Amino acid sequence: MERKKIVVALGRSAFGETFPEQRINVKRAANTIADLVESGYLPVITHSNGQQIGMVHTAMREFSKLDPKYTVAPMSLCGAMSQGYIGYDLQNAIRTELLNRGIYLPVSTIITQVKVDPFDKAFSHPSKIIGRKMTKEEASIEEKKGNYVVEKEDGWYRIVAAPKPLDIYEIDAVKALLHAEQIVIAGGGGGIPVLEQATILKGASAVIEKDWTAARLAELIDAEVLIFLTGVKKVSLYYGTSEQKELDTITATQAETYIKEGYFSKGAMLPKIEAAVSFVTAGKNRKAVITKMEHAIDGLMGQTGTTIVTKGV
Amino acid sequence: MERKKIVVALGRSAFGETFPEQRINVKRAANTIADLVESGYLPVITHSNGQQIGMVHTAMREFSKLDPKYTVAPMSLCGAMSQGYIGYDLQNAIRTELLNRGIYLPVSTIITQVKVDPFDKAFSHPSKIIGRKMTKEEASIEEKKGNYVVEKEDGWYRIVAAPKPLDIYEIDAVKALLHAEQIVIAGGGGGIPVLEQATILKGASAVIEKDWTAARLAELIDAEVLIFLTGVKKVSLYYGTSEQKELDTITATQAETYIKEGYFSKGAMLPKIEAAVSFVTAGKNRKAVITKMEHAIDGLMGQTGTTIVTKGV
Repeated sequence: MERKKIVVALGRSAFGETFPEQRINVKRAANTIADLVESGYLPVITHSNGQQIGMVHTAMREFSKLDPKYTVAPMSLCGAMSQGYIGYDLQNAIRTELLNRGIYLPVSTIITQVKVDPFDKAFSHPSKIIGRKMTKEEASIEEKKGNYVVEKEDGWYRIVAAPKPLDIYEIDAVKALLHAEQIVIAGGGGGIPVLEQATILKGASAVIEKDWTAARLAELIDAEVLIFLTGVKKVSLYYGTSEQKELDTITATQAETYIKEGYFSKGAMLPKIEAAVSFVTAGKNRKAVITKMEHAIDGLMGQTGTTIVTKGV
Repeated sequence: MERKKIVVALGRSAFGETFPEQRINVKRAANTIADLVESGYLPVITHSNGQQIGMVHTAMREFSKLDPKYTVAPMSLCGAMSQGYIGYDLQNAIRTELLNRGIYLPVSTIITQVKVDPFDKAFSHPSKIIGRKMTKEEASIEEKKGNYVVEKEDGWYRIVAAPKPLDIYEIDAVKALLHAEQIVIAGGGGGIPVLEQATILKGASAVIEKDWTAARLAELIDAEVLIFLTGVKKVSLYYGTSEQKELDTITATQAETYIKEGYFSKGAMLPKIEAAVSFVTAGKNRKAVITKMEHAIDGLMGQTGTTIVTKGV
């Protein structure tokens, strides 16, 4: 059987915060991945790591206080560690769920680096939340260290630059594993952002929006579908107001119009819609779906969720 | 060209301690890997992580003190993080060195889990050093926390159980990448030790001797050669005494006799010799080489190093 390639982008809610929480939460994602496998898909999974990279970065900062030999670990190393940590839990949960259903499909995690442009204007406008919620006092300490912080409805958060992903360095490894019909976890946390300096890759102090990396990944492996599993069943216009209007199937052109008109918020739905448009318009017969974890299969069948396609339906 | 598969086991000295140190040190390993590639080999690389997993574990312990929600990270998660961290630096150094020589071969890191036996007697006899050197006072604090410590010539170290590796769960991914003629970093730190409980893999509080995992890996991919890159040019009998006798080529049978007679020390050469014997005796026309990083190619040609073969020469 020739399986249909699908890129699955998992958001923050798929993991949770503490170690036991993540181990339990990934079972939901594993369940959805197994559903996709049973529906004839071969999933490539990418995921956010905002909480985990923040945790690792803070932990490594504490470590550097213990031993004067050590400086604080660069963000890129923390990204690599977070990919290992999340991949480990996720690949195990998927393996177990598949075996419980009598399916043997190998699943592995590839440490992934993504090329960013040193002149990306994102470097001067940090926007991406990392780490746990902070009090105003903690945020003030972070700021004094030269880090950027932002106040959200429920508290303060550290923010870093989120440049655009240009290329995925380990794409040949991902392709080889897909060719062997294996499930791959790649581009975790949007990938480790690196700057190309001749033959050297230099880690950048940034994180990449995982939705954007998911779209690049989907393009590069020529996936049929890109699915974003998130906290809402459908994308809405006027979200959270009395005029809220859920979107079913829209064309990329419609989506672009909504984007221009500012319907989607930056920290939430905007990167997903932008990434979806970029993926579906770069090839033929592609679709992108945005829905809740538990509605993935229904979303793919067009029974729920928001589907973005190239042509009108 | 059909490349000859070789498993390369890198020791602690290939990395160093701090972040900049590791980034610089891995260039030496990358140079050797590139030499192997130019000599017609396709390397699978495995490496120690004793220092790095200790660092991550300590860092995560410090983090747990900041936030009461968090417990100390299990050793298995720290292992996954250390694989990501080391793999990232190593794959980049190899990529750069190959490109500098005009060679394009993809290289990637696979997060790797290794099956261990819950009844392995190693669990009641911790023996493997992890983390940095400690003072007597620091060691005493570790002991009070329920951890095992040991005094070595240059200071105190924390030790954990080192059970035998039985199987490598991500071996299909490694094989698929080799089939696509790509360089793979796998089984880092000996792999994350896990106990199989029905369809679940449960992280074990242990580390696996990377030399043993290197041998399992070499067996499972049917490598031609297993090479241990270490601090000495050749294996010696009566090491460090006036009667020191360097070994050139020995048979597995001779090696087993030396092992039985207690010629090799537990924390140093013993696991390499045992692993070498296990690899060469499990197949035909196989050899294992133990030598210094910079003598890898000469070692493979039998011009230096210690070679272990099945039959007499």
